[in-house]
Amino acid sequence: MTTANILCLCGGVGGAKLAYGLSRVLPADKLLIVVNTGDDFTHLGLRICPDLDSVMYALAGINDQQRGWGMAGESWQCMQMLAALRAPTWFNLGDKDLATHIQRTAALQQGLALDEVTRELSTALGIAHRIVPMSNDPVQTVVHTTAGALPFQDYFVRRGCQPVVTSISFRHSDKARPQADFARALASAAAVIICPSNPLLSIDPLLALPGVRQRLARRKVFAVSPLIQGRVVKGPAAKIMQELGLAVTHATIARHYQDIVDYLIIDEGDRDEIPAVYESGVQALALPTRMQQAEDKIRLANHIIQQMAAVV
Amino acid sequence: MTTANILCLCGGVGGAKLAYGLSRVLPADKLLIVVNTGDDFTHLGLRICPDLDSVMYALAGINDQQRGWGMAGESWQCMQMLAALRAPTWFNLGDKDLATHIQRTAALQQGLALDEVTRELSTALGIAHRIVPMSNDPVQTVVHTTAGALPFQDYFVRRGCQPVVTSISFRHSDKARPQADFARALASAAAVIICPSNPLLSIDPLLALPGVRQRLARRKVFAVSPLIQGRVVKGPAAKIMQELGLAVTHATIARHYQDIVDYLIIDEGDRDEIPAVYESGVQALALPTRMQQAEDKIRLANHIIQQMAAVV
Repeated sequence: MTTANILCLCGGVGGAKLAYGLSRVLPADKLLIVVNTGDDFTHLGLRICPDLDSVMYALAGINDQQRGWGMAGESWQCMQMLAALRAPTWFNLGDKDLATHIQRTAALQQGLALDEVTRELSTALGIAHRIVPMSNDPVQTVVHTTAGALPFQDYFVRRGCQPVVTSISFRHSDKARPQADFARALASAAAVIICPSNPLLSIDPLLALPGVRQRLARRKVFAVSPLIQGRVVKGPAAKIMQELGLAVTHATIARHYQDIVDYLIIDEGDRDEIPAVYESGVQALALPTRMQQAEDKIRLANHIIQQMAAVV
Repeated sequence: MTTANILCLCGGVGGAKLAYGLSRVLPADKLLIVVNTGDDFTHLGLRICPDLDSVMYALAGINDQQRGWGMAGESWQCMQMLAALRAPTWFNLGDKDLATHIQRTAALQQGLALDEVTRELSTALGIAHRIVPMSNDPVQTVVHTTAGALPFQDYFVRRGCQPVVTSISFRHSDKARPQADFARALASAAAVIICPSNPLLSIDPLLALPGVRQRLARRKVFAVSPLIQGRVVKGPAAKIMQELGLAVTHATIARHYQDIVDYLIIDEGDRDEIPAVYESGVQALALPTRMQQAEDKIRLANHIIQQMAAVV
């Protein structure tokens, strides 16, 4: 295991917690963190990649743990002035966070690809581990609701996840190529970890890229369920599962991932759900999955790496 | 005079003081403020119009009078983060000021012309008077120095006006059309006021636009000299005049403007220079031109309007 490469698939804030933990227990050259870009959008001319930023800020240790998103020590002077100038203000733009969006947008305009920009930003933030976008090609998560088809940020931020979801699609995903390091890891990684991000909104965009599901099916894949005692720590995963007529259980998560996942890691308090997970053809591992402090994140990462060592 | 239109030609901070004064003594529909855009540039993907912003902030009463530029109550969180991200930091971007650049850039990208964007920003800031860019077409002030040809902001901000100036040119000014309101006022204004901005750097770009000099020559034009006792209040005008071998006197300013200006307004403390001004074929008026407090700006504006009423 020590010389093998670990591929980590990650969404935003929830996934970033485990990505942080993994970055603390694995050397930089053994871990590749691939991040959802289906939530990316252009707002006020700025290219915003919320999940990439969440993962970068978490690994750089500059994320706001109290608020749960964005940068620590953030201020909102630009935002207030934008409001005075009658700009749309439904998407929060912190003064510090803006620097990332400005620098990224300028670099993209200069012709750099998103993975190159992400490497430059990560390096500047002192991050040794590799964080890459799932693709340099744009993919747009579209949330189909009883209020119509909504771009992700429109659903998630502007409407606060209120509309009832009927389905989710990933525009242009059929034409988007997996980022180069991601593609290589899909062919060679000793094991894959799917972070406890929203499977439907944050992980499915990665799985929708051409060839990803097929190639993951050939790897040892460990997914961490985002559910704890029938709830999610944060976000609309449970609400959406209910709206889609799915039971909010680990077995549902296991069935969702059953063609690619070998082991579903569920919270140790949910051991009674292990038999139902097994029934879907996925093995279950019970571990402490609640991550509040840095120690929790590192402990879960260590547990997973140990379990992997036993089976890979 | 009360029904006549006043056309005000203006650069940045220095000119904005008189523009503010004029806006306090003339009704909104009697004054058109035309602003230099030769200093405009694109930085980190943001379109920045320093002189338009200085005039807008001054008229909106949100300019920082202590620092002399930018917005009052400014903070620099984004700037510090940009530095951490290794972005260029030679041009100051305040958190509040950024809102203007972001909103303007987004509006221009959506296809609005600079004068339309400026009207929207002005309206949002509660400015009743009309502020327009000299042209919607890009003009670039280039400062030719012994260190080479430098874009204006490179000379002015990055190099702090240190290089020795040999000449100044206005790139694309031959193809740039005066903004529509500006063009109309050139044909109809009862009088024109040239603010005490840097004649070589801030006013000459307006005069370089096709037809402007010729049409100004047919109007009654009052220019306020930026010199007071052989010095400028702010900026490199005196330094550049010396580098170009020009005496730092009101007579030099008068000769510079002699084909278009009827009256040069000099500071009341410089009355001894009146004969030299007359020798250049321009009439001289001595008024208190030092503007520190709002009262000074309003008083000078009132004086000028009264002088105009006597001769127009």
